[in-house]
Amino acid sequence: MATKHILIVPGDGIGQEVTAVGKKVLEKIAARFGHTFTYDEALIGHVAIEATGNPLPDETLEKMRKSDAVLFGAVGHPKYDNDPSAKVRPEQGLLKMRKELGLYANLRPIKLFDELLGASSIKPEILKGADILFFRELTGDIYFGEKGRKNNGDTAFDIAEYSRYEVERIARKAFEAARTRRKKLCSVDKANVIETSRLWREVIQKIAPEYPDVEVEHQFVDATAMLLIKDPRRFDVVVTANLFGDILTDEASQIAGSMGMLASASIGDGTGVYEPIHGSAHDITGKGVANPLASILSAALLLDISFGMKAESEAVISAVDQVLKAGFRTRDIADQQTPADKILGTEAIGEEVLKFL
Amino acid sequence: MATKHILIVPGDGIGQEVTAVGKKVLEKIAARFGHTFTYDEALIGHVAIEATGNPLPDETLEKMRKSDAVLFGAVGHPKYDNDPSAKVRPEQGLLKMRKELGLYANLRPIKLFDELLGASSIKPEILKGADILFFRELTGDIYFGEKGRKNNGDTAFDIAEYSRYEVERIARKAFEAARTRRKKLCSVDKANVIETSRLWREVIQKIAPEYPDVEVEHQFVDATAMLLIKDPRRFDVVVTANLFGDILTDEASQIAGSMGMLASASIGDGTGVYEPIHGSAHDITGKGVANPLASILSAALLLDISFGMKAESEAVISAVDQVLKAGFRTRDIADQQTPADKILGTEAIGEEVLKFL
Ligand SMILES: CC(C)[C@H](C(=O)O)[C@@H](O)C(=O)O
Ligand SMILES: CC(C)[C@H](C(=O)O)[C@@H](O)C(=O)O
Repeated sequence: MATKHILIVPGDGIGQEVTAVGKKVLEKIAARFGHTFTYDEALIGHVAIEATGNPLPDETLEKMRKSDAVLFGAVGHPKYDNDPSAKVRPEQGLLKMRKELGLYANLRPIKLFDELLGASSIKPEILKGADILFFRELTGDIYFGEKGRKNNGDTAFDIAEYSRYEVERIARKAFEAARTRRKKLCSVDKANVIETSRLWREVIQKIAPEYPDVEVEHQFVDATAMLLIKDPRRFDVVVTANLFGDILTDEASQIAGSMGMLASASIGDGTGVYEPIHGSAHDITGKGVANPLASILSAALLLDISFGMKAESEAVISAVDQVLKAGFRTRDIADQQTPADKILGTEAIGEEVLKFL
Repeated sequence: MATKHILIVPGDGIGQEVTAVGKKVLEKIAARFGHTFTYDEALIGHVAIEATGNPLPDETLEKMRKSDAVLFGAVGHPKYDNDPSAKVRPEQGLLKMRKELGLYANLRPIKLFDELLGASSIKPEILKGADILFFRELTGDIYFGEKGRKNNGDTAFDIAEYSRYEVERIARKAFEAARTRRKKLCSVDKANVIETSRLWREVIQKIAPEYPDVEVEHQFVDATAMLLIKDPRRFDVVVTANLFGDILTDEASQIAGSMGMLASASIGDGTGVYEPIHGSAHDITGKGVANPLASILSAALLLDISFGMKAESEAVISAVDQVLKAGFRTRDIADQQTPADKILGTEAIGEEVLKFL
């Protein structure tokens, strides 16, 4: 029986709807396992800009630092996407949070629930058994280097940067995770062209001998984008830089049937942050159709990684599995065989998960 | 009846084997349509380094400039990939060629031959009818900016850069192509984070009103990596930066069944260069199993784009189609239903194509 303080940060768009469901699951777990979870809430992204002018108010950051874990939603708003000259943007809040909390490792497990084999655009026989754990570096690369304009604004530039130290700390996390799994690590880079990738490869090669039980391969990012679809089962743990990780994990969501199923954990020096990999999805916001399972599975990661509560985490995953086995689906994971009355909205499928807890 | 001079640049690995077949197809076309094609050959990549110390000898560049078109193979060698500190690399030859010849637009048509519906890892019902034309920018971005080390080699950096001019010239090519197709253009960037992407989006927005008949959408690169697999038919023409194009087109090769089917055209200020999108593939080099169809289809693009020979180009594509209809496959595009005696090697499937010409 533990006492923990959880900060709920729903952010923008469907972040609000799905995080509310994720929180209910945490409440139910606390009740069932006799823990005391306390909650607070804070603003980030577009909603924070509207309220305070700042995409990551100091108060939010302060609350994050003081909590034992953060359940996060999403940030973003089409208004800024279509205005390339906007100076203040929702995403700045997300990036600043990652940097300030030292969240250098973003874990994205890609695993298909058997019941969703039909929901993917990839053939079931290619998918069956695929189980990949991505480690995406989250506080370096072109995301955080200097950027700007030259020549009266006619030329734009972005600087990508990595230090040995930054590569090594995420690489070690990935090697250690590989040890507890199928002992294979694929490091993804573009070392045939990019200097940061050459440093990346050097560091991996240098520390690999310390993990003689882990089989290491290096792949170029373009080849990896192809192999993920062609033969997803060849991957166990994948470690890569921030930008490549952003692209490859979104792509890999198709292995799990839908982006709406994928949870992620951002960990590092302090409080861990848990969030769906899907974004704010303003096209479906407020319609009550968003898939909350990624937020629920993010709560499961939170219980496991930040609180060390394995049984509680497994109870959540198993409840999701049972809901799928019972035939319930949100729209995004329904296939042609799903009867209409089994297609539920955000809250309704959340209630089904609660029943199995 | 035209007279044209074609430079054959096989490069490394399977580049040698497949380009030889591509050349035979050009010879056959010249004979059948009464053209006079003359040929020369030149070195690039690892083979050029071995012979001259230089991945793009001046002599090769000179010959390229003087020819009417270049049929290209591939460059690369594992020896350099595993040595991140190598100073001279095969890829430098490729990049220098692109820069020196002003090949700023790389066209990668992604279209599935109906006979290969079964060969893809994606479900046939998702694929059927997919037809995408990528415009990948080829002489800017992080590929060509300054790169190096700082802090005694402990920090690596790469600079990505784009000017308005560079974005506009490729964007116009893409808009014009969209006009001749389904009139949809998807511009891919990461404008929520990257400054070069913001400039990119600005330029697209600025010139879009000049093409009122083309429907434009902007997508983030991560979302695009997902959508390409989830719903490939939603795309018509896609335009994007060098690095994003590299990743997305390799991924999209799965839409065409195999990378072994995809041709590309690099065009710009001078001589056009035509090449398969697959690489040197040293794991299968010399085994006689490489798929030469991408090189043959590159020859078809060459005839169409550089020589304006539409009928000749279509004759080549139709010959490939007939070979597939006759049931012949290389290993990479065979499916479980393909009988063993229909699986041919590089030369043998090339001979089948020649029979239909
Ligand atoms: C919203 C955006 C800045 C973000 C990123 O690129 O990191 C998102 O795509 C993600 O993957 O968390
Ligand atoms: C070999 C490599 C440098 C090249 C690239 O990244 O451009 C290749 O992947 C390609 O797509 O032509």
